[in-house]
Amino acid sequence: MSVRQSALLALADDSPDLWDAGFGEVAKRLLTAGVRCFASTGFHATTTRDITKAAALSPAALYVHFASKEDVLFEITRSGHRRVLEVVRSTEDADDPSVYLKALVARFVAWHARHHVAARVSQYELSALTAEHYEVIAGLRQQTTAVFEAAIQWGVEQRAFGVVDAHRLVRAILSLGVDLVRWYRLDGADSPDQLGGFYAELALGMVAAATSAEAT
Amino acid sequence: MSVRQSALLALADDSPDLWDAGFGEVAKRLLTAGVRCFASTGFHATTTRDITKAAALSPAALYVHFASKEDVLFEITRSGHRRVLEVVRSTEDADDPSVYLKALVARFVAWHARHHVAARVSQYELSALTAEHYEVIAGLRQQTTAVFEAAIQWGVEQRAFGVVDAHRLVRAILSLGVDLVRWYRLDGADSPDQLGGFYAELALGMVAAATSAEAT
Repeated sequence: MSVRQSALLALADDSPDLWDAGFGEVAKRLLTAGVRCFASTGFHATTTRDITKAAALSPAALYVHFASKEDVLFEITRSGHRRVLEVVRSTEDADDPSVYLKALVARFVAWHARHHVAARVSQYELSALTAEHYEVIAGLRQQTTAVFEAAIQWGVEQRAFGVVDAHRLVRAILSLGVDLVRWYRLDGADSPDQLGGFYAELALGMVAAATSAEAT
Repeated sequence: MSVRQSALLALADDSPDLWDAGFGEVAKRLLTAGVRCFASTGFHATTTRDITKAAALSPAALYVHFASKEDVLFEITRSGHRRVLEVVRSTEDADDPSVYLKALVARFVAWHARHHVAARVSQYELSALTAEHYEVIAGLRQQTTAVFEAAIQWGVEQRAFGVVDAHRLVRAILSLGVDLVRWYRLDGADSPDQLGGFYAELALGMVAAATSAEAT
């Protein structure tokens, strides 16, 4: 591992609360170790032994809790996508579509910043999942996207926003949150909440600009 | 390789013009094969033999042209980052800062859409580079970022844009172009130029919104 990677992972958030409550302590340690291994050398070059070693467990321990290395990736990815869906679904209602959209974006962005290492694995290793597991994740992603698209549609109906292509616009807004997992560092200038607040303002600007883009 | 990955790579742009003119035909074939291998299984799990096989060459052929597997990744990444810098630097001057910024964003986004597979390798495998090679790429990235930051600063000086933190804003605008390499498909709804035009409008909206975010 390079000095740069070690420094990056040293700043990673371990967050046992990332994982579903149904997992025991040992399984959570394996998931956290899996995040660190996949984030530093990629899914394909990581062995189950790398994961058990990083979790300070015997090589056979992994198979007590997971069917395979791919199953570890699936549970990391499923947990991450479930947490994101919970975060956007639990966003407080608002009377004003702009206020609601800003809250959604701020929470989505702050979550990705706070959990950027686990989120990076969840976003960049999707192609290593089996077709069945990928379908589960794709379903969770569609539900998250649907919350944002409904927020935009509501704003259009309320005439708070102009007429826009919600699908195309939401994809761009979500890019702000997803792409930060590539470069965000917890010791950088913006805290997760500060970045969330800034990107929430940018998202409103994108809604206004998309309206004029559609009109041309 | 999964059916999904095969379908994705079948749509990849081979683009021999991605590579620096100094490379001969065989070296270009190896670089193109490297992109496909790294994109499908990641840098760490790819062997030099995988690359020569994908290029239909003998296993030893790689070392005639490159020092190592890491050197193949470096040349892919350097070529990609050089092309991006050329694309933004050759953007036509304009009298209006908004027109100029839109042209910059449109060209940056369209390039990443057109070359999304090579761009994905260039963006997501940076941590596998040696420290020396990483420095070279970081320098190219800084030069590209500087073009965008100068465009924003010029707009602020001309009072076409309000007062904004150019560094923070440019990072968000570049996320639109970079993140699309994760999901863009050449057979999707938007051509590279259409997506570039749409994101150029969104970027102007982000500039306007960043002004109000700074003011609060």
